[in-house]
Amino acid sequence: MQKLNSTISSIKPLDEAAMQAARRRQDQLTKPQGSLGVLEELSVQLAGIQGRALPVIDKKVIIVMAGDHGVVAEGVSAFPQEVTLQMMANFAGGGAGINVLARHSGCEVRVVDVGVAAPLDIPGVIPKKVRPGTANIAAGPAMSQEEAAAAIEAGIEVAGAELGGGATLLGTGDMGIGNTTPSSAILTVFSGAGPDVAIGRGTGIGDNALAKKQEVIKSAIEVNQPDAADPLDVLAKVGGLEIGGLAGVILGAAAGRAPVVIDGFISGAAAMIAAGLCPQCKSYMIASHVSVEPGHRLMLDTLGLKPMLFMDMRLGEGTGAALAASLAEASAKVLAEMATFAEAGVAEKNGPAS
Amino acid sequence: MQKLNSTISSIKPLDEAAMQAARRRQDQLTKPQGSLGVLEELSVQLAGIQGRALPVIDKKVIIVMAGDHGVVAEGVSAFPQEVTLQMMANFAGGGAGINVLARHSGCEVRVVDVGVAAPLDIPGVIPKKVRPGTANIAAGPAMSQEEAAAAIEAGIEVAGAELGGGATLLGTGDMGIGNTTPSSAILTVFSGAGPDVAIGRGTGIGDNALAKKQEVIKSAIEVNQPDAADPLDVLAKVGGLEIGGLAGVILGAAAGRAPVVIDGFISGAAAMIAAGLCPQCKSYMIASHVSVEPGHRLMLDTLGLKPMLFMDMRLGEGTGAALAASLAEASAKVLAEMATFAEAGVAEKNGPAS
Repeated sequence: MQKLNSTISSIKPLDEAAMQAARRRQDQLTKPQGSLGVLEELSVQLAGIQGRALPVIDKKVIIVMAGDHGVVAEGVSAFPQEVTLQMMANFAGGGAGINVLARHSGCEVRVVDVGVAAPLDIPGVIPKKVRPGTANIAAGPAMSQEEAAAAIEAGIEVAGAELGGGATLLGTGDMGIGNTTPSSAILTVFSGAGPDVAIGRGTGIGDNALAKKQEVIKSAIEVNQPDAADPLDVLAKVGGLEIGGLAGVILGAAAGRAPVVIDGFISGAAAMIAAGLCPQCKSYMIASHVSVEPGHRLMLDTLGLKPMLFMDMRLGEGTGAALAASLAEASAKVLAEMATFAEAGVAEKNGPAS
Repeated sequence: MQKLNSTISSIKPLDEAAMQAARRRQDQLTKPQGSLGVLEELSVQLAGIQGRALPVIDKKVIIVMAGDHGVVAEGVSAFPQEVTLQMMANFAGGGAGINVLARHSGCEVRVVDVGVAAPLDIPGVIPKKVRPGTANIAAGPAMSQEEAAAAIEAGIEVAGAELGGGATLLGTGDMGIGNTTPSSAILTVFSGAGPDVAIGRGTGIGDNALAKKQEVIKSAIEVNQPDAADPLDVLAKVGGLEIGGLAGVILGAAAGRAPVVIDGFISGAAAMIAAGLCPQCKSYMIASHVSVEPGHRLMLDTLGLKPMLFMDMRLGEGTGAALAASLAEASAKVLAEMATFAEAGVAEKNGPAS
């Protein structure tokens, strides 16, 4: 818990002076003021995060946290649990969706075992296993509070190592068969939203499995009574190990003054945990896409995040984060590389253009 | 007119066999079927366009068509007309928004003078001037039907040259102070939408100028009586030279079996002209973003296009197209580079996961 507490206490507000300088420069660039919209806002946010008027995004790293879920015993997923392990090898081999999109977007990928059920020894996978999968949340807590804190601290450690290695932007990604179930449970606890909003089809379950999933989440909350005012309690009782790990990545990024791009629904659940532990960390978050999962929009609204990509994606793994990381980098380049009106000899807006 | 007619008659439907092969492969890749959403749909569209199961997007070119507008005499823009010319030098110097975003997205930029009001001799700008700016549409037609056809044919020529030079994807961009006014007029004629929907603030005019712009567009339509059933008539009477040029780029891309990414509101007006001349060309279009201009959404709906980026942009120049071109390239890479379930040894979806 010590690393978690010290990380939280080291997260500071954004640098207002750097943001003002970035905003002033945006207003002098050869375009109508505000006409690059979110790209302008992002560049100002990045300035505030990095504490410099011209932020630089070069080395971008997507951190994929993996864990298994005892609740799959209830039949809440369309895929068998062994897929979590099999996908670890696919990540390591470069054949998964995140590998392709990260290469395209100029991101590196790190894969972390925070809680895969099976033992694994795959070169390139960072071993941070806290326990081999969670317990079945329909019957009791997913894990102990100590384990929840350890999962978060694993994420803090990985984020810190990447920032120490020169990363200027982190992105979140997840792998864990069954993990929309704990994510929906977390959203339900924090938002009070009903099952129609908070619970979706994940990787593609049918009507019967969806009804079962709704019942399982209702049971999980009744059995465990998670305390919405205590995010660590929520994570331990109805969460997941990779969700904890990603909350740690977010907190670690904020503590290291680095932007962190939030992927989809599972990453959003992690962001809710992180924001619950430290509301200030929200200003270090960058939203990526809106997932097909019905609860994702509510998650983003709750976090105050504005997604950029509407592409009906629901794969996870950090695929949306990789695409959005490139947009964040583009925003920094706009700020740094566009000519000003004075430099380009371009006339500014008419005075009386009212 | 001969080049225009022969181009239109050479535009064919997409290759269904290639699309089926792409869809089959998407369904074997290591992800839940459909979970990459629009990226999957795009890859299938690209397969149909290129006529091969594994489409390749490598050389991407954004074509920025520039023209001036006599209607600026009515006070419809926040910027003076000389900015069109000044920005041509900024494009050539690499300091404009499109230059930065094209470099970031791995696109090349071509800048074409289809109708800038002033004479210009800027190295790198492709000279295709049909006339030095349009006439004031509030008082009469923007140009003759012959000039409108020549503007379209200029675009066809530029597109053909780029495809001949190895481009595998084209994107549209525009430069022309005042050009949201003819674009709104085109939208009004084709859709019948009222001024609240079809007419917006462009580069940032205030309430008085907006009221003036609405009045001007009403006059332009009353004075010219454009025939919505005759797209060339609409372009000639209330359009613009760069809008015609972009319609030509779209038709030229479709004739050359290349995808064309449609930028924002002005490019959307050009797409309406192109689709009016040849409905089949819509299947070669890829939408990019939703602009702040209120009519853009209606334009996209009318064209049957689904935007990917929601970033409150309204700069034009092809800035949204550059970002979306990268997403199109990503979709082709997903299809080509992801491992299949069999290759990766990953279990597929449970049979009874209903």
